[in-house]
Amino acid sequence: MDDIEAEPARRGSPTLRDVARRAQVSVATASRALTSDYPVAEATRAKVLRAVEDLNYAVTPRQPKRNAAAHIAMVVSDVVSPLRSHVATGVADAAGDAGRVCSVYITGGDLQREEQVFSRLEEQDDLDAVILVGGVEITDAYEHRMSAHARALHARGSQLVLCGRPSLPDGVPALVVEYDNRGGAYAATSHLLSMGHRRILTLTGPERSTTTIGRVDGYRRAYVDFGVEVDPTLLIACRADRSGGYQGCRQALASDLDFTAIFAHNDVMASGALAALRESGLRVPEDVSLVGYDNIPVAQELWPPLTTVYMPHEEMGKAAVRLALERPEPGSGRERQLLGTHIVIRESVRPLPASHHEER
Amino acid sequence: MDDIEAEPARRGSPTLRDVARRAQVSVATASRALTSDYPVAEATRAKVLRAVEDLNYAVTPRQPKRNAAAHIAMVVSDVVSPLRSHVATGVADAAGDAGRVCSVYITGGDLQREEQVFSRLEEQDDLDAVILVGGVEITDAYEHRMSAHARALHARGSQLVLCGRPSLPDGVPALVVEYDNRGGAYAATSHLLSMGHRRILTLTGPERSTTTIGRVDGYRRAYVDFGVEVDPTLLIACRADRSGGYQGCRQALASDLDFTAIFAHNDVMASGALAALRESGLRVPEDVSLVGYDNIPVAQELWPPLTTVYMPHEEMGKAAVRLALERPEPGSGRERQLLGTHIVIRESVRPLPASHHEER
Repeated sequence: MDDIEAEPARRGSPTLRDVARRAQVSVATASRALTSDYPVAEATRAKVLRAVEDLNYAVTPRQPKRNAAAHIAMVVSDVVSPLRSHVATGVADAAGDAGRVCSVYITGGDLQREEQVFSRLEEQDDLDAVILVGGVEITDAYEHRMSAHARALHARGSQLVLCGRPSLPDGVPALVVEYDNRGGAYAATSHLLSMGHRRILTLTGPERSTTTIGRVDGYRRAYVDFGVEVDPTLLIACRADRSGGYQGCRQALASDLDFTAIFAHNDVMASGALAALRESGLRVPEDVSLVGYDNIPVAQELWPPLTTVYMPHEEMGKAAVRLALERPEPGSGRERQLLGTHIVIRESVRPLPASHHEER
Repeated sequence: MDDIEAEPARRGSPTLRDVARRAQVSVATASRALTSDYPVAEATRAKVLRAVEDLNYAVTPRQPKRNAAAHIAMVVSDVVSPLRSHVATGVADAAGDAGRVCSVYITGGDLQREEQVFSRLEEQDDLDAVILVGGVEITDAYEHRMSAHARALHARGSQLVLCGRPSLPDGVPALVVEYDNRGGAYAATSHLLSMGHRRILTLTGPERSTTTIGRVDGYRRAYVDFGVEVDPTLLIACRADRSGGYQGCRQALASDLDFTAIFAHNDVMASGALAALRESGLRVPEDVSLVGYDNIPVAQELWPPLTTVYMPHEEMGKAAVRLALERPEPGSGRERQLLGTHIVIRESVRPLPASHHEER
């Protein structure tokens, strides 16, 4: 039994659509009449078969489309986060420029939904790549699961591209585009240190996420380079959203923790911290300096406009597509790309007067 | 010739994956060995066939999946706009709750990319619905094109759901979930009128978009109900983004247009207008009152926090999925749903002193 499909018009060759038109039935009915697995009235089948004969239409079985790669999939927890929505934009634009259809699968951070999506994608024959976006907690179970997906996609002629998370163990066929979490956090922290701040409250995301680990490392390195010891009570792990930043800052204020600046691990956490400071009657930057991360559009809307770390989100999405289409050879050294970041100075940081140091 | 696929494990039945494992080849190779359209070394094919025999694996042709509907697609110009990303979240969550995989296709507002996506989706057999999101300019060409897509999807057992745009001509099989643009704009405008404002600058999106037409209509109706004549010079059509709002407001300021309040047709346009006012040394709400539309997260981050119109974006996405899965009968009156809106009062509007009226 053959599975028929309506193929795009080839010059000169009739299509299933032509057959349907001639037989005066819908394309779906024509398709059903030419396969044997759906009941179709005998008169209808006869009409369709006559049209097939008249048009000299070739009934061809469905061809695997491995060579007509035409589809790039992106898998992500959400597109509400502005950074992920900008990565999605970069992926869609680069895919469009390359003539590929791009689809985004939103998992809501639900492992079962993610697995369901991979099952679906691993069955497809015309998939260039699956781009998986966002930091993750690295566990043995994660590495095992993701290595299996990388191999299954590879076996189908497709590829796994990890975007914003680290490489899988050696030998697993996956590409990687990462941003420099350590470098960005180093820049933010050393900016505050160079302005005289020594007690910098750090509101991080979930402790074991690869993004948090890189950014905490950058924060610590800056302290080391400035010859200042890190007080571990200054690091507070929060949910990586506005309410997480708000609650982390409230917690620090309630515990009478001594700090003159806040480094929030993303801009929406910074906006939550700003709201908590305002509620306590503290002004930014007069009383507390504030730095975010990501440079999402809201950073320039905050009052005062937020100093933050620029992340090339759209560029990251584009780089993931380019890398996937380039298909670098294993061992070529091109399988992993690291994108740089830089700090964007606005109005939320002020230098700390020297006197302030002496007080403390 | 049959097309083989790796099917999900059925209790007791060996899968292509089992065959591949036993033959010590990849799943892709096993698949190729069992179809005749790819060259495979004879020794490999023999190994695979032996594994098939050992495992009593049933070589089955690919089955159309029409009855196992498992997929909902959403088509949208972008997911950077917070409203569209929240609609996408609602669609993904409701699809996930119903056990469906949800994919989002981003077209960048490019007609060719949209057509490419529809061509792809119209070939799929396991698609519950295609949800098309966002306002549009209604032309004969649009209606013709979209009616054809609605019919093609319907013929495949799927459905077109229009979300945030009006119904297609009678008899076209499409579902509709709309928000009440007219009611929301009426609420925003009558709030300003009731606070004493009479000269309300309106920054609209593209003039012929259905969203703009509904919102301008609501603005006009509020004026009529307050017995005040509308000055058409107060309506300025802009790009529906931050720079559009910024430029529209600059244009109004440069032309010495007399106004005491601004109604921006969305919150990001309002944030652009706020920046333009600030640059001209005008304070909100002391000098000019400001109202937005959408109630996206940035509205509460602006300073002052923005009075705006609440739009149930996530709920709209969920309603679209529910409607699609309900599959209402044509003529049941359930094919179109209208979602309500309400105004959210924050701090960007002040009452106009009566003296101000007399001055003008």
